[in-house]
Amino acid sequence: MIDWLSEPVGQLDKGFLLQAQEKQNQLTKPQGALGVLEEIAVIISGLQKTKQPNIDQAEIIIYAADHGIAQENVSAFPQVVTAEMVKNFSAGGAAISVLSKQHDLSLQVINLGLVIELPRMKRVEHQVIAAGTKSFLHEQAMDERQIIKAFNTAKKYVDQAHDSHCQLLIFGEMGIANTSSASALVCALSSIEPEIITGLGTGIDKDALAHKVQVIKEALTNNKQHLSSPLEILQTFGGFEIAALTASFIRSAQKGIISLVDGFICSVAALFAIRIKPECKPWLIFSHRSAEQGHKKVLELIAVTPLLEFNLRLGEGSGAALAYPLIRSACLLQNEMASFSSADVSEKLT
Amino acid sequence: MIDWLSEPVGQLDKGFLLQAQEKQNQLTKPQGALGVLEEIAVIISGLQKTKQPNIDQAEIIIYAADHGIAQENVSAFPQVVTAEMVKNFSAGGAAISVLSKQHDLSLQVINLGLVIELPRMKRVEHQVIAAGTKSFLHEQAMDERQIIKAFNTAKKYVDQAHDSHCQLLIFGEMGIANTSSASALVCALSSIEPEIITGLGTGIDKDALAHKVQVIKEALTNNKQHLSSPLEILQTFGGFEIAALTASFIRSAQKGIISLVDGFICSVAALFAIRIKPECKPWLIFSHRSAEQGHKKVLELIAVTPLLEFNLRLGEGSGAALAYPLIRSACLLQNEMASFSSADVSEKLT
Repeated sequence: MIDWLSEPVGQLDKGFLLQAQEKQNQLTKPQGALGVLEEIAVIISGLQKTKQPNIDQAEIIIYAADHGIAQENVSAFPQVVTAEMVKNFSAGGAAISVLSKQHDLSLQVINLGLVIELPRMKRVEHQVIAAGTKSFLHEQAMDERQIIKAFNTAKKYVDQAHDSHCQLLIFGEMGIANTSSASALVCALSSIEPEIITGLGTGIDKDALAHKVQVIKEALTNNKQHLSSPLEILQTFGGFEIAALTASFIRSAQKGIISLVDGFICSVAALFAIRIKPECKPWLIFSHRSAEQGHKKVLELIAVTPLLEFNLRLGEGSGAALAYPLIRSACLLQNEMASFSSADVSEKLT
Repeated sequence: MIDWLSEPVGQLDKGFLLQAQEKQNQLTKPQGALGVLEEIAVIISGLQKTKQPNIDQAEIIIYAADHGIAQENVSAFPQVVTAEMVKNFSAGGAAISVLSKQHDLSLQVINLGLVIELPRMKRVEHQVIAAGTKSFLHEQAMDERQIIKAFNTAKKYVDQAHDSHCQLLIFGEMGIANTSSASALVCALSSIEPEIITGLGTGIDKDALAHKVQVIKEALTNNKQHLSSPLEILQTFGGFEIAALTASFIRSAQKGIISLVDGFICSVAALFAIRIKPECKPWLIFSHRSAEQGHKKVLELIAVTPLLEFNLRLGEGSGAALAYPLIRSACLLQNEMASFSSADVSEKLT
């Protein structure tokens, strides 16, 4: 239903992978002594088909959207916070704003549809699909036209980033109730029980968690005729921002851009991207394991170990932005360290 | 034996701790959503007695020294590599050189005594105690005059950093065979068996590991009359650089400077610093858990969870330098994020 999804994804180049590994083995350190940083630099070399991996051209894109399911009282915060946080991103007061400034990364917020209509504001592009999704308790959250629009909007912004020579994208999200959406998505895709996946989100209590689990259980039953494919599941339980993230991960891989995956919501979108387009997996770097209960399981389903474990549970791309300087370090170390021969350092005894 | 060790260490200020925690709870995020970053920012606020924690003034100090125990064939690399790597630090080709450049941190290398005499070179200060320690297989590695000199040299450089308003010090080390020294130190201090602590260092094989364990076992037996206090154990098995690191952690805490602790060697020095001066512990931020076998145990003895787990095993302060931007993020987030009231964001539903 979305033509461009069939476009090919850049493959890991085995020649450059091997060259990068050989280069790593010649740098002035014991072989393997930089651990996961070596693995990251080598994989980026293979993806970018270069001896000099580089992610200096990087940008942050945050997708914001409201969720109909919020009316079922599944979140600790009122729905108006989605709009308020978009204003906060615009004004530079959010966590991701501070991190974008620290690392000198541009930040663009895409409003995909909130219950509140927002005026023009700095850093925010309005690409409204609808005033939020419908509640998925009894029906699909989106119609087909809407999920297509979410995918195509994401494609537009990734293509723009590609046109400006972007090498790495940090994706984030904002949408009150989107842990409910993400939990339902994982359960529908994996058949794991909602009790295992559903967590505290922004900080509900035990009773509210039991209610949230119950809402997701009922929604799964009520929508069981709409779960035939990853795309249909996304249309049924997805938020606009989760659909856009899924599309972004696929499109970035198609355009040769590395994606830095944030927390639970982004990882669920990454899981869907990989189910729809398995070849995009090497293009995704998973930044952290969050405190949200279901995240561990989602990372297991994808079979990845993320870089950080800081008990974050904020979203906005904040964990991914934190990991950015570490991935830069990985590239810089491979590119700038001296070799045993250039620095006249003796090699390992045999 | 070293007068200044009795000087007091700055205490965590409970008032500022509380103020910082209250501020964190007002920032535009769910309470606790920044996980360990919140804890770090709050602790630094309490240490620095400020609402605006700041570690922007930071420097890297690497202590280099040779070890007599290297003559027992306990390392995968020849002893000349200590001197060669000092030249590499000076020339800017080592991993820590690349990281210091990335984060715009000055790098100073203190040569405490190598088997090779080095000429004057950029970034390197020669403070030679002796041409390396003696082998601790049959006798103490240092005499009393030498450990005092190592401690006082460290004091001098920390005091210099304090005079230039340094807020955080990243310490690193270089010394072929220093995992043998560090392993013996931990075993002597904790009575844990050498098999549990001793690891592959820069990459010895299984047979060489068995030999390394045997050397440490014999050394522990041969020196059993020299293990009456942490300082005497340091004198018996320490390298000059490990003694200097121990002194540096204590002195930094006395001067109100936060120390970022690197891998196995630095953590062993931190363990000794805490045994000698328990009050210095809050001033130490542990950056990573390395691949070296004994590091996990040492971190357990100290009862800390480090920030990163990247399977690093390089030393040089490399893991600490990697963690530096994350600690900066923690401070910046507390200082620069908007509050619920300033950004007009609704708070959690009650």
